[in-house]
Amino acid sequence: VAVAAIVVAGGSGRRFGRAKQFDLLSGRRILDWSVEAAASAASEVVVVVPAEAVAAEAEGEVVRRLAARVVAGGATRAESVRAGLEAVSDQASIVVVHDAARPLASADLFRAVIAAVEAGADGAVPGVSVPDTLKRVADGVVVATVDREELVRVQTPQAFRADVLRGAHRDEPEATDDAGLVEAAGGRVVVVPGDPRNIKLTSPDDLVVLEALAGSPSPALPETWAESAR
Amino acid sequence: VAVAAIVVAGGSGRRFGRAKQFDLLSGRRILDWSVEAAASAASEVVVVVPAEAVAAEAEGEVVRRLAARVVAGGATRAESVRAGLEAVSDQASIVVVHDAARPLASADLFRAVIAAVEAGADGAVPGVSVPDTLKRVADGVVVATVDREELVRVQTPQAFRADVLRGAHRDEPEATDDAGLVEAAGGRVVVVPGDPRNIKLTSPDDLVVLEALAGSPSPALPETWAESAR
Repeated sequence: VAVAAIVVAGGSGRRFGRAKQFDLLSGRRILDWSVEAAASAASEVVVVVPAEAVAAEAEGEVVRRLAARVVAGGATRAESVRAGLEAVSDQASIVVVHDAARPLASADLFRAVIAAVEAGADGAVPGVSVPDTLKRVADGVVVATVDREELVRVQTPQAFRADVLRGAHRDEPEATDDAGLVEAAGGRVVVVPGDPRNIKLTSPDDLVVLEALAGSPSPALPETWAESAR
Repeated sequence: VAVAAIVVAGGSGRRFGRAKQFDLLSGRRILDWSVEAAASAASEVVVVVPAEAVAAEAEGEVVRRLAARVVAGGATRAESVRAGLEAVSDQASIVVVHDAARPLASADLFRAVIAAVEAGADGAVPGVSVPDTLKRVADGVVVATVDREELVRVQTPQAFRADVLRGAHRDEPEATDDAGLVEAAGGRVVVVPGDPRNIKLTSPDDLVVLEALAGSPSPALPETWAESAR
């Protein structure tokens, strides 16, 4: 089956503080880590960047070598995903969406979510367990300790049947992740073992952490999501 | 007011894989990071270690310099906390419990939770926001996306009124954290801004991350927990 990957790097600093997707991690741009991993698992790659960056990105070494398409993002993450979806070819029956803010997502992780959709799910997301105690808070006071046995923290890449993802985005909804839209539309989303190293770059400390992890040999992925981050 | 700190390092590898509390982080033992931070905020420190380590720890440089007491832990975390509580002096009206597996907890963080109890709470815990989308899973399939707006990940050190903490432990309950016991007993537990760097050492990768953070200048603590980890 033909698989398209959408790498979302549309943020112009709203979510990153500044446009960190162009910073270097271990000598390679944050964005390029994701584009390389996506290209090794998908047959086409669409890169979504801020409008002002499209021309420069289209001339970039990685984009040209991998024959990726570059399109302009929208005002929100969901709009950027939709801009990417419009650039995906009709041949693609599976679409993988990935946030460039997670540069350490491996090609194996892309393949794992794709395989789960090939096996029949409407969508597949990587999940890792919740290592910290979670509490629900109101006005600064704890109101409950949350049972986290059945909770997972989900990551990207997230893979979907292309028609299901297009349908979920049809009414231009907003959500923190695409799986949430597919779930809301009644789709069956499965969880595959995520990678504790696949952290999201949100603060300057995260870049320190990512640098350390990028330079350290990776342990094997856990067999089940329940084992991860334990 | 007199404040006692209990540093829990009772695990003999059950939770760490091996007894990582004695590993080095940036040239100093994991355990000693916490004992030093606790001692700078509390008037007495009790260190809970596996029974077989008590004699050696009691002769340790940090323990002797800080006049800390060393006691043997129990079979579970809660039992280890109770062993520590028994060694706390009657003068202490506030008790701070800290997991040695969080070596980067700062003296300021200890002071923050203590101050919140001095200000009238039964207990105070550090909380940081949840950066990842959370989903509830059953049999590997997503059943719900969890609203995380009012959720925090809680850390240690956790401070309590001494009588409240003793009461919460009276019936020898088990829980993932002491705050949970105090909440269950009807206590009012408040959340203070936690520190995203104050991560828990659970995997070999965590040690890589802790080394990187220990060697990197710390940003200021966020003003509110809602800002942390965003």
